[in-house]
Amino acid sequence: MQKTGGNDMDFSKLDNRIRNKELFNKVMTAEEASKFIHDEMVIGVSGFTPSGYPKAVPLALAERVKQSGEKMHLALYSGASLGPEVDGAWAEAGIIAKRLPYQTNSKLRNSINEGEVEYLDMHLSHTPQYVSYGILPKVDVAIVEAVAITEEGHIIPTMGVGNTPVFVKQADKVIVEINTAKPLALEGMADIYMLENPPHRKPIPITKPDQRIGTTYIPCGNDKIVGIVITDLQDKTRPLTPVDDISKKISANILKFLEKEVKLGRLPKNLLPIQSGVGSVANAVLYGLCDSDFEDLTCYTEVVQDSMLELLRCKKAKLASTTSISPSPEGLVKFEEEIEFFKDKIILRPQEISNHPEVARRLGVIAMNTALEVDIYGNVNSTHVMGSRMMNGIGGSGDFARNAYLTIFTTASTAKNGNISSIVPMVSHVDHTEHDVMVIVTEQGVADLRGLSPKERALEIINNCVHPDYKPMLLDYYKRAYESAYKHTPHILEEALSWHIKFMKTGSMK
Amino acid sequence: MQKTGGNDMDFSKLDNRIRNKELFNKVMTAEEASKFIHDEMVIGVSGFTPSGYPKAVPLALAERVKQSGEKMHLALYSGASLGPEVDGAWAEAGIIAKRLPYQTNSKLRNSINEGEVEYLDMHLSHTPQYVSYGILPKVDVAIVEAVAITEEGHIIPTMGVGNTPVFVKQADKVIVEINTAKPLALEGMADIYMLENPPHRKPIPITKPDQRIGTTYIPCGNDKIVGIVITDLQDKTRPLTPVDDISKKISANILKFLEKEVKLGRLPKNLLPIQSGVGSVANAVLYGLCDSDFEDLTCYTEVVQDSMLELLRCKKAKLASTTSISPSPEGLVKFEEEIEFFKDKIILRPQEISNHPEVARRLGVIAMNTALEVDIYGNVNSTHVMGSRMMNGIGGSGDFARNAYLTIFTTASTAKNGNISSIVPMVSHVDHTEHDVMVIVTEQGVADLRGLSPKERALEIINNCVHPDYKPMLLDYYKRAYESAYKHTPHILEEALSWHIKFMKTGSMK
Repeated sequence: MQKTGGNDMDFSKLDNRIRNKELFNKVMTAEEASKFIHDEMVIGVSGFTPSGYPKAVPLALAERVKQSGEKMHLALYSGASLGPEVDGAWAEAGIIAKRLPYQTNSKLRNSINEGEVEYLDMHLSHTPQYVSYGILPKVDVAIVEAVAITEEGHIIPTMGVGNTPVFVKQADKVIVEINTAKPLALEGMADIYMLENPPHRKPIPITKPDQRIGTTYIPCGNDKIVGIVITDLQDKTRPLTPVDDISKKISANILKFLEKEVKLGRLPKNLLPIQSGVGSVANAVLYGLCDSDFEDLTCYTEVVQDSMLELLRCKKAKLASTTSISPSPEGLVKFEEEIEFFKDKIILRPQEISNHPEVARRLGVIAMNTALEVDIYGNVNSTHVMGSRMMNGIGGSGDFARNAYLTIFTTASTAKNGNISSIVPMVSHVDHTEHDVMVIVTEQGVADLRGLSPKERALEIINNCVHPDYKPMLLDYYKRAYESAYKHTPHILEEALSWHIKFMKTGSMK
Repeated sequence: MQKTGGNDMDFSKLDNRIRNKELFNKVMTAEEASKFIHDEMVIGVSGFTPSGYPKAVPLALAERVKQSGEKMHLALYSGASLGPEVDGAWAEAGIIAKRLPYQTNSKLRNSINEGEVEYLDMHLSHTPQYVSYGILPKVDVAIVEAVAITEEGHIIPTMGVGNTPVFVKQADKVIVEINTAKPLALEGMADIYMLENPPHRKPIPITKPDQRIGTTYIPCGNDKIVGIVITDLQDKTRPLTPVDDISKKISANILKFLEKEVKLGRLPKNLLPIQSGVGSVANAVLYGLCDSDFEDLTCYTEVVQDSMLELLRCKKAKLASTTSISPSPEGLVKFEEEIEFFKDKIILRPQEISNHPEVARRLGVIAMNTALEVDIYGNVNSTHVMGSRMMNGIGGSGDFARNAYLTIFTTASTAKNGNISSIVPMVSHVDHTEHDVMVIVTEQGVADLRGLSPKERALEIINNCVHPDYKPMLLDYYKRAYESAYKHTPHILEEALSWHIKFMKTGSMK
């Protein structure tokens, strides 16, 4: 239950959480803290993939606006997706004018697709620099969830670091939510390292995923903190995605492919640091690694979910570097019980570091991310349903995909009970170009596009990845395009998007 | 004139060029050297943007095949584009089966678009890793143009480093063309630094464009060298592109924009390291900088042309880091006369370093590259005419664009006497996604897309960059799309590519 805070509170149990006595003067209710937020402001919040985001103050603000009917249009910046207490409640209250860089909330998604919210879908490594470079409108207020505040007023984050460091640095005012439901034992997991702007930027000194290079706290200082709210609201993390049969087949295809790469001497026996997106396939692959012969694995990724915790538990992986820990509700309970086990096995970095091309390319990550649809030449759409409708966003997939040693995109070969082929003549939106996509895996098989020309790719994809229902249709398109067009990337523009159009008209691409 | 080499040559003048006496035994004619090349081989050649590529041996091979009629299908890897002695002569002889990662030759382009050559259009920073990681079929023979060979058998490159270091490292056999037309004074310009493969890769220690971090030679060793050919064939560099009125307007728009960014405190007074593509607009911008108030500029780029040499000459820029010097034929003569002046002002790096995301992002380059077409949501097509026909390739534009502090794409608002609008509802091919494109500049004006949602971008682009002839049509498309579709990225898929289709049918988008 949310504590009310204020002068009537018993502070004796908070000595470990608020380590500078003078800061107790700033403890207030969520409703009081929400008054620092005014119309037209830019709000930067902690959190990344429903984890570590503030809850009490955003809820209080939404409630206040609902009650008062006051005008409130905010720009909301975050690390990545937030829980319903922010994205959901604020979208419902109609107070988000602009949102960046990522979201997964159904209410907010609707507002975006109805044209009520301007949404900026960004590479997650770009957001912190857009902030630091002064390109985006300046953050006025940062709302940050914390385990504790140090004597000096620095912030010990909970389980999602995201962009908190740059937001806190830029904000005039910082509101801290001390979340007593989050164990103090989280302290020490964070490794905060901040980059200077060009031309003063130095190399990021990470050469292995397990290196710590920064501080365990986010620099802030007592003066910036204008309000402290005590809460015990737990993260509303995603429910555990069940691993379905399709995902198991995709996972098996990936593991077989990785084994082959090791045999060919193109990957070390213990692979290279793993980056994995979220969802059923990602879980299937990581669970698959638990049961595999691979050993001494490492992870350099942006989010740790149940399956990656399991990979650490089963000792297949030694370490995970991430910017967020975001297990299922059950997984979260288990994680917090076992926190001493995980403490030296997880490093929580700012997303500027977890997603930085410099580090991703140097370490040579194996990037595994999900595609919405893929075309026969290897372009990937990760974001837009039928070219216009935003699903979630590109997230960090581009940061990793382009800079990976090996980048794999996965998708079931069909969707909507077989009425959509995930492989089409031309994708309706491009998030990852033909230049960035190395391997495509469906439950049908693996298309290894590395070193292939567009025409060679088309045959590799059609032959190995497409569902049998759609294979003759795609082959027919490709052959007719080859006969009728210039032959570098043969297309019949009149038909290139016809599969999508047909689906929108008839409910099926067949 | 091409020297014939062999035992009848006068070696006395070559002591400075071939510094190990034993290597004189390997001097041979181009025709003799061409015999190391067999059917089905992978050939890696020096050179980048018609500069520093081998000429005598490729010509001899093409001639030999023409005479003998022997079967010859080669994979040809390079740094970037090559002169007609390779791409042209080999395409004409029909001996290129696969080509990567970039080309600009009209004969080769035709062969690609007629389906005779499989062309792999790659990010230029990806090629060296694809080679080192063992992903591409291995280089059998490297043919390398050199100023000289050291006592230890290491290679002093001429004016285009490109991928020579990784090709030489991987090849079993190295053929060196000593080009006596290239001044020995070039020695010292190259700075060769090679990366280890993950997981052993270290940070690249460049924090300023003027830092030298490697050797002045490409490591090779006497044993690998199987043939040395003496030649004096000059690079067939591109003729100077005249700066037309449209380019002047685009340049003026860019300079005004940069001045504004400095005033807003978002760029330092001396800007940040400049990366500039090639062609008329690039020249106009760099000449424009010569006449501007900017001072103490630096360049971190992949190719130095006449206009960047002029920027050094006029002392506006202190230094250019590049992988290639590729002036016009007149500019080349002038450059070689003034080589002592330029010697400490140009650093020639491998393209793995000149184009590395790690360095581009750390330095915070200002990237200026050309678009073929742009769409109203900010996606850029750099490569494919009407979706199928390859023009040149993406080159290094993606390496810089995504990692730049500021990335600008330029295009004239129309092409083909106004019958093509360079701004369309949906591009027919995507090389740079909406996530990577910050600023678009045409002769009409500047669209600053940073921080904007897709809808906001559409209005910014239509209002500021589109030619008046097409503005009402695009606005009409956008408005109707907004009414009929999901409103994140409104599209009417039936019409999205209709402008291209109309052009192909009628010769005009109007």
